[in-house]
Amino acid sequence: MSNLYITIGREFGSGGREIGKKVAKALNIPYYDKELMAVAAQESGLSPQFLQSYDEKPTNSFLYSLVMGHQGMITGHQTTSVDQMAANAQRDAILSVADKGSCVIVGRCADYILRDRPGLVRIFITADLDARIARVSKRDGLDPKAAEEKIRRMDKTRASYYSFHTDRKWGAAECFDMCLSSSFLGVDKAAELILKLCEGMEK
Amino acid sequence: MSNLYITIGREFGSGGREIGKKVAKALNIPYYDKELMAVAAQESGLSPQFLQSYDEKPTNSFLYSLVMGHQGMITGHQTTSVDQMAANAQRDAILSVADKGSCVIVGRCADYILRDRPGLVRIFITADLDARIARVSKRDGLDPKAAEEKIRRMDKTRASYYSFHTDRKWGAAECFDMCLSSSFLGVDKAAELILKLCEGMEK
Repeated sequence: MSNLYITIGREFGSGGREIGKKVAKALNIPYYDKELMAVAAQESGLSPQFLQSYDEKPTNSFLYSLVMGHQGMITGHQTTSVDQMAANAQRDAILSVADKGSCVIVGRCADYILRDRPGLVRIFITADLDARIARVSKRDGLDPKAAEEKIRRMDKTRASYYSFHTDRKWGAAECFDMCLSSSFLGVDKAAELILKLCEGMEK
Repeated sequence: MSNLYITIGREFGSGGREIGKKVAKALNIPYYDKELMAVAAQESGLSPQFLQSYDEKPTNSFLYSLVMGHQGMITGHQTTSVDQMAANAQRDAILSVADKGSCVIVGRCADYILRDRPGLVRIFITADLDARIARVSKRDGLDPKAAEEKIRRMDKTRASYYSFHTDRKWGAAECFDMCLSSSFLGVDKAAELILKLCEGMEK
């Protein structure tokens, strides 16, 4: 019986977290998102605050690494930058929770980190900009303009982080097994389709 | 009762045609792919051979239009290039078959052409390169190297055609309601998931 690893990439404000939680609950398997930070802190000895500050964020020293031609997870040539320390701790946490059994993991290049594991399912969630603005406005208490700015900034940040740590393109259909629009489908139907896709895969 | 328009974009050799036919058969609605050529020929008076030669293909005069800043379907500023004549005939054919009722349409920017119609479902099919090479080798009687070259050329051509005639990016998850990998799922399961997505939408 093999494990099932459902990784969920997502546009900011598309409800990927909510969908992932529903899927994990229906399958009765653990869900990891921010929760990975605690695992990473415990296993690496780095502080949760430090890890949080680098969570899916390329920073100045990340940009420096990029300019200097340093690479992330792709080549295995690890830099000693703090960004890379944080990314490594998170990678180790992902491998560690995957060793424990089936799970749902949102973001953090989990699809790439677990690429050689049987039972991997790579999902990406999108949503129309209007729907994302509405969601982020409500959730974060922002006016629509500020919500849109945050969405654009966060998408750019996630895309950069993903590109740096993988050899793939964030949000390109070809990099995933299934991509779903939550604004078209709704959160419940998106979760239902993911469960339908997983039917017959042992957990 | 509203119509259902299932448009299927696809990477070359991903089995989009086969999946589309299965979906159309299950829903008992017409399927259009190369079949659009006959409709376009009949309605435009242009010869099927002429239309075939421009089917989803940007050509020299297309590139000329591009350089000269002419636009395709986006702006409505129609050039008189032969490419544009062919694209217009195909657009009119798509609008015409959609007027007749629910259908499945593969490729040809149908998702964009029908963007304002209720009942539109935008699907994109991908597959791993190895699976596509195997499919194209077998189907077209090519050795793997020739099959790979054809795949790369055809993908590039389709992407250019799509970019020129829409304001969207071919193969970007955000432009579709559902994207599926046929090499991960298989053709039958991909069709099944599309049908599951359409459940509850009137046809």
